[in-house]
Parts: sequence; C-alpha cells; structure tokens
Amino acid sequence: MGQMEATDVRVGVLGCGNVGAALVTLVDEQSGVVSERTGISLEVAAIAVRNTSVDRGVECSADVFTTDAEAVVNDPSIDVVVEVMGGIEPARQLVLAALSLGKPVVTANKELLAAHGEELYVAAEGAGVDLLFEAAVAGAIPIMRPLRESLAGEPLTRVMGIVNGTTNFILSRMSDHGATYADALSEAQSLGYAESDPTADVEGFDAGAKAAVIASLAFGARVVPADVYHEGISGVGVDDIEAARAMGHCIKLLAVAERKTSVDGGVEVAVRVHPTLVPLAHPLAAVNDSFNAVFVEGGAVGELMFYGRGAGGRPTASAVFGDLIDAAANLRRGHGAPIGALRDVRIAPIGEIESAYYLSLEVDDRPGVLADVAAVFGGYGVSIKSMEQVGMGAEAQLRFITHLACENDFQATLGGLGELDAVRSIGSVLRVIDD
Amino acid sequence: MGQMEATDVRVGVLGCGNVGAALVTLVDEQSGVVSERTGISLEVAAIAVRNTSVDRGVECSADVFTTDAEAVVNDPSIDVVVEVMGGIEPARQLVLAALSLGKPVVTANKELLAAHGEELYVAAEGAGVDLLFEAAVAGAIPIMRPLRESLAGEPLTRVMGIVNGTTNFILSRMSDHGATYADALSEAQSLGYAESDPTADVEGFDAGAKAAVIASLAFGARVVPADVYHEGISGVGVDDIEAARAMGHCIKLLAVAERKTSVDGGVEVAVRVHPTLVPLAHPLAAVNDSFNAVFVEGGAVGELMFYGRGAGGRPTASAVFGDLIDAAANLRRGHGAPIGALRDVRIAPIGEIESAYYLSLEVDDRPGVLADVAAVFGGYGVSIKSMEQVGMGAEAQLRFITHLACENDFQATLGGLGELDAVRSIGSVLRVIDD
Repeated sequence: MGQMEATDVRVGVLGCGNVGAALVTLVDEQSGVVSERTGISLEVAAIAVRNTSVDRGVECSADVFTTDAEAVVNDPSIDVVVEVMGGIEPARQLVLAALSLGKPVVTANKELLAAHGEELYVAAEGAGVDLLFEAAVAGAIPIMRPLRESLAGEPLTRVMGIVNGTTNFILSRMSDHGATYADALSEAQSLGYAESDPTADVEGFDAGAKAAVIASLAFGARVVPADVYHEGISGVGVDDIEAARAMGHCIKLLAVAERKTSVDGGVEVAVRVHPTLVPLAHPLAAVNDSFNAVFVEGGAVGELMFYGRGAGGRPTASAVFGDLIDAAANLRRGHGAPIGALRDVRIAPIGEIESAYYLSLEVDDRPGVLADVAAVFGGYGVSIKSMEQVGMGAEAQLRFITHLACENDFQATLGGLGELDAVRSIGSVLRVIDD
Repeated sequence: MGQMEATDVRVGVLGCGNVGAALVTLVDEQSGVVSERTGISLEVAAIAVRNTSVDRGVECSADVFTTDAEAVVNDPSIDVVVEVMGGIEPARQLVLAALSLGKPVVTANKELLAAHGEELYVAAEGAGVDLLFEAAVAGAIPIMRPLRESLAGEPLTRVMGIVNGTTNFILSRMSDHGATYADALSEAQSLGYAESDPTADVEGFDAGAKAAVIASLAFGARVVPADVYHEGISGVGVDDIEAARAMGHCIKLLAVAERKTSVDGGVEVAVRVHPTLVPLAHPLAAVNDSFNAVFVEGGAVGELMFYGRGAGGRPTASAVFGDLIDAAANLRRGHGAPIGALRDVRIAPIGEIESAYYLSLEVDDRPGVLADVAAVFGGYGVSIKSMEQVGMGAEAQLRFITHLACENDFQATLGGLGELDAVRSIGSVLRVIDD
C-alpha cells in the first residue's frame, strides 16, 4: 500500500497441472495489486512441464515453457522456485538444488514434506532462505503460518483436523442423504473428488501424511508418516452414522496430534487418524462436504478453528500465491524464516492414548446381560458415560459411549466382552472426541 | 528449533490489566520454549502502570514496575513496546513516540487503531519497524496476519465477522434457552461479559470499530468507524429468533465488509454492522456463546473461516505474544513489515448495498391481501424468495425472505407496504446473508 521502489522477482514454476495453471493465472491477474501493496513485481519467467505441446490455458508466451526443470532451478535469473509437480522424485532433488543455490522455495507437495520435511527444513536453514508450504496441508486454509508464527509461543496441547476432503465428502453424503459408503464413493469419483483407486484417501494415508506435517510444526518435533496410526472410513456404515446421531454425534475422519508428558517428564507426541464421533455442537461438526478445517487447542489461546477449501486448483493456488509473495518480500529484506531442525521426541504408541469410545454390541435380550457387560467395563477401569438399547430379542443391540479411557484398557475390555456368552458379536468400535 | 545464538530482546509493557498480566505470565512460562525454537530470549524489562502498589499477580521483581510510561518508551535499553493500556490518549502519543524511536510496537487497542490506524501505519512505515495488532480484532484468532500476508495477493470480495462476544453470548442465550433480551443481557453482565453500560457492545459500536480495521486490512483502504453503518441487537426479540429458525436461519450480529466496483469502474467499499439472518447450514451459524469468527470470501481462495476466543486475558495475551515474537524476529533481521498508507476509496452508503431481507407484517386476514402486498414488492423490483403466514384473524402475520435487492428499493417497498390499508403494522426488518 505504501510507495516503494518496485522489486522485480522472477519466478520459476515446476509443474503446470491444475494448481500450477491456476497460480500462473493468479499472478497474471493480481500482480498489479500486489505490486501496489508490497512493491514487489512478480513475473512467471519459466514453467517446467513434461510436455510443452499441451495447452495449459494460461496467458504465457510459449518460450516460458520448458521440459528442463533442472535448468529452471539453475537459471541465475530465477529468484524464487515454486514446486507444484508433486511426487517425491525429482521434486526432492529440485527443491534441494534450489535451496542450495540460495533460492526460496514454495511447495504444495505434502508427500514430499511428510517423507523428507526435515531434510528440506535443514537445507533451507543452512541456506538462510524460506521453504514455505501453506498449500501442502488443508489447501487454501492458512494454518501453517499461524502454527509457525502466531502460535510460536503458545503451549499447544492438541491439533485436530478434517484434512481430507474426499472422505469428508463421502461421510457428508452418507450422513445427509443416507447414501451407502459405496454409492457415496462412486459419486465422489464421478465428481473428481476421489481417485479411481481411492485407497490413499479412504484408508487415511493422505490424512496421515498431513497429520505428520501438522504435528511437526505444532510441536517442533520430528514426526514422519510411519509414526501415524491410521484407520480409514471404509468400515463406517450408514447405521453407525445413524447411531452416532441418535447419541448426539456425527462421524468425521479426524487427524489428531497431541502433545503429552512422558513418564520421565519429557515431551512426547501421539498422532493418529481415524473415524471419530464428534459432538454435534462442536465446530468441527459443521464442516461438511469437501471442506477442511483444523481445530487447535492451547493453554493460553483456548480453542481456534481454521476452515476452508482443502483442495482444488484455484484455492490451492491462492495459498501458494500467498507464500510466493511472502518469500519474495523476505528475499528483498535479505532474510528468510526457515524452520530448521526438529526435536527428537518419543512417539507414543496407539495403546497409550486416552480417548472416549463408542461401541455397539449384539447381545442376548435377557435380564442380567447389562450387569455382565458393565462388570467387564468396570473390571478394566473403563467407565460408561451413556448407554442405550435398540431392538429387541434377536435384534437387541447395546450401544455405549465411554468416558476417557486408555486405549489398552479399552482393547482389553473388548477382549473380555468377546468372551461373554451373552455377547453374540462386537459391532462397531469408534473413538469419540470429548466436548 | 535450530541452533542459533540467543538474541536478548527487552520488552516494555504499557498497562498491566487482564491482558498485560496474562502476557507477562506467558512470557515467563514460555520464554524457554521460544528461545529454543527461535533463538530469541524475551525479557519483560519494564511495566508501566497507573498504581505500582496494586498486586498484579505476576512473577516480576517490584523494580520492573513504574508509573512513568514515557520513560519506558524512551529507555534506550527497551527494544520492543507492547501497548495494552487501552483508550486513545496517552496510548496514541506513546505508540507514536516508540515508533519514532525505531521501536516495534505490538498493541491490542482496537479503539486506537480504528480511530488513528493510518497515522500509526504511516509512522511505522516511516521508521521501517513493525506495528502489529493481531489481538485488536477477534482476540486470540489469527486473522490480521492472514489478511496482511497469506491473502495479500487474493482478490477478496467480502469479509463477515462475529466480532463481538457480548452480543453473540446474548443472542446464543436467547436462541438456546428462550431467554429474553433483558435476561440474557443481565446474565452477560453478571458473568462479566457485558459492561454495566452495555451500549458500546449491544448497539454495534465495538463491532463497527473492528469492522473498520478489518476492511482497512482486507481491501488496503482507508476506513474509519464513522464510515461504518451500524444497528445493534437491542431490538431483536425472542419471536424474531423463533421466526428465523422456522425459516431455517439463526440471528447473529455480523460485521460485513464488501468490496464493490463503482459505476466508474473503481473500487469502493461498503462496511456495516447489523443483526443478520444466517442460514443454519452456514459455518457462522455454529459460532455460539462468546466465541468470535471471521468468514472470508475471495475469488481464488473460496471461503475461509477463522474461529476462536474473541476476548479474555489469556486468549488475547496469546495473540499479543505471537506478535511480540514476530516483532522480535523481524527486529533481529533488521526489517519490519509495516503496512503504510491506505488507499482512498469511495465508501458506499447503506442505501446502495445489496442484501436479502427478512420482514414480518401484521395484516388483515382476508382474501386478496397477499396479492396487494406482493404487488408492492414487485413494483419496486424486490422479489420474494419465501413466505409464510402464521396466526389467523387479528393475529395474522406474514413473514417474507426476499432475494437479493438494493437497500433503497427495499426501503421504498417498506414505505409502500406501510400505506396499504390491509397492513396493520410492519414488524421486524432484518438483513439475511445468502447461502
């Protein structure tokens, strides 16, 4: 907004799919406003693609396109590199090369960050330049920057996110329209929200990779995808959703990252992804369709939530664009704000987490059954918050929500329940967030 | 998180009420973590208060306290100034003095920013240092930084906020418990959420001041509180809330800032605060009690929402603390990121805005009345989206929600309806946000 001399910043873009093309268009449309506000004049000087003969629908002269991504990174006239090609290699090598040349990098690549984040953070710190990746988690939602900056001094205790739009769309369809999982999945596929092989989304791998990045930033700790326990949504039925609603909850696939105190007083971190009962009055319950949200809890800040589009070319490009402006501004100031090395902390295994649980049991419908069942809960120190019986006779089902309990104790309870004669089968088992 | 030499940063705090005391405690508790993460060692070196004999409940040696705020600002050993005293003077003079000495300033003072923001922004730019004020709008919620940084290149079209916790608490109580406005207000007063003179909150002045700051940042435009049209909630009845719910809405006091294109193709801005019907499925409808939220719409980013605590000592101090760390980091880098001058834009008067409207009419219950009423709407080009009749005979009431219409046309419609014999009186008139 002030009067400054314009600084020209030449941008090299690696990849020109949905996000890359939307970014190039956004730079074209908005560079005047950005220049007026910040004094930085952005120019997309090179775009590396696999095939230069494809029409990308962007307003660029043909000589901007090249198939030689390494040449873009090495071109001394390129000031900032944007990596939106995806995948691990060659993205990793190209990002490392750019950083080693002292060029700030903006990336939207969650797989790369989840698997090799710390190597990249350390490389950026060594070079004293920015590595920014707002778009890599929860698309358009500004969540990385608050975690790195606004909340840098906040004693965060838990971060919970709906970070996979595909599964949130499927669960919303099942919840609002009574669609089966299979029908909702094929609707998501026909709308382009789900891949033809949906495993990465529906089994929680994608959310797990994002959870690793979130936990790393929130707690300054080394967390990789292999540290993240995950369960997907393919086992969630419409009957579970209906049962949850009858007990005042909806079901969401949540990524949960918690900071805990270990027995020796140190910091430890637990990170997991699973379908979760969320109380209907909780702000996360209002996050529907393909929207994402990240809910942050801290000792001072209380509760925060960040909500928005988790995917899509233009929303994701918007986040990349914000990072690009920031990287360019820091470049002009001569100093980035790299993250650097992460602390090594103990990762608590799933058995040690505390959660409330939802459980349905098919039982014999006769006097004394509830007493037997309750005795098993009590024997493992798991206390029951609410219970209801549905159906009668051969259809009788008991549904429970517990108070907070240790996962190992709850699993032991399940084992004990399975041995009761009166329990015909254990139905659904889902974790519940406290309200 | 990396290994850096520690930089000592000495902080002068002006004011030590709820927010100041919580900040001093937070610095005390978290400075070790911050130093480890950022290499910046923060020390509260001076606290200016009106009366040094009051126990503030903070862990500070007595010689840190002084009644001489000017001396704190002028002390060459003080690197950063935090202003949490509130009010216009002497806060304005002290902030200007600190900036002129090249000291970054963090403030939580919305009145000061709303009334004198641009003077301060220009002073900060002239000195090349930071003026940060995350806590001034929506308390703990990181919204200023995204507007300044993440969304700096985003063509924002509208920002809507629930930015006054007092009125949101009152409306939530009326909605959830059927409390009258008077009862909900006195409950808010007894809980300390509302002042004994609640005018600034309930008549929308506080939200208006925040709306001016939001609009300035979102659109880079000069907007002061006098530019903001405002209506309060003291006229909202439980019957309005019930009628709204029957038509699928709740009622929230919203601050709305819109960017529009003027007839000559330039940018203009419309800013207003009023009770508003919000569709129950809208994320803002799930923001209850004293929570705040800011909903942002942009051409690329789509829809974003930021949710959290709008007030309270520790949440507000958390936002101040984040700014303080940022200011200290920029100080070490030798360069702040001041905002500078704002653009002069036309402020569109309320008559020119477009909105949907809710309207209730007491009418004679006889054939032909609806046709007469509908003819008045149609005559002014206002089209009806939904209508319902409640009550019969002398109790008959018609309730309408319109499609988008120009405010002037809608007001003319009200004038025309008032002249109909069949209309006994015009009941409630409320604006409605589109879903």
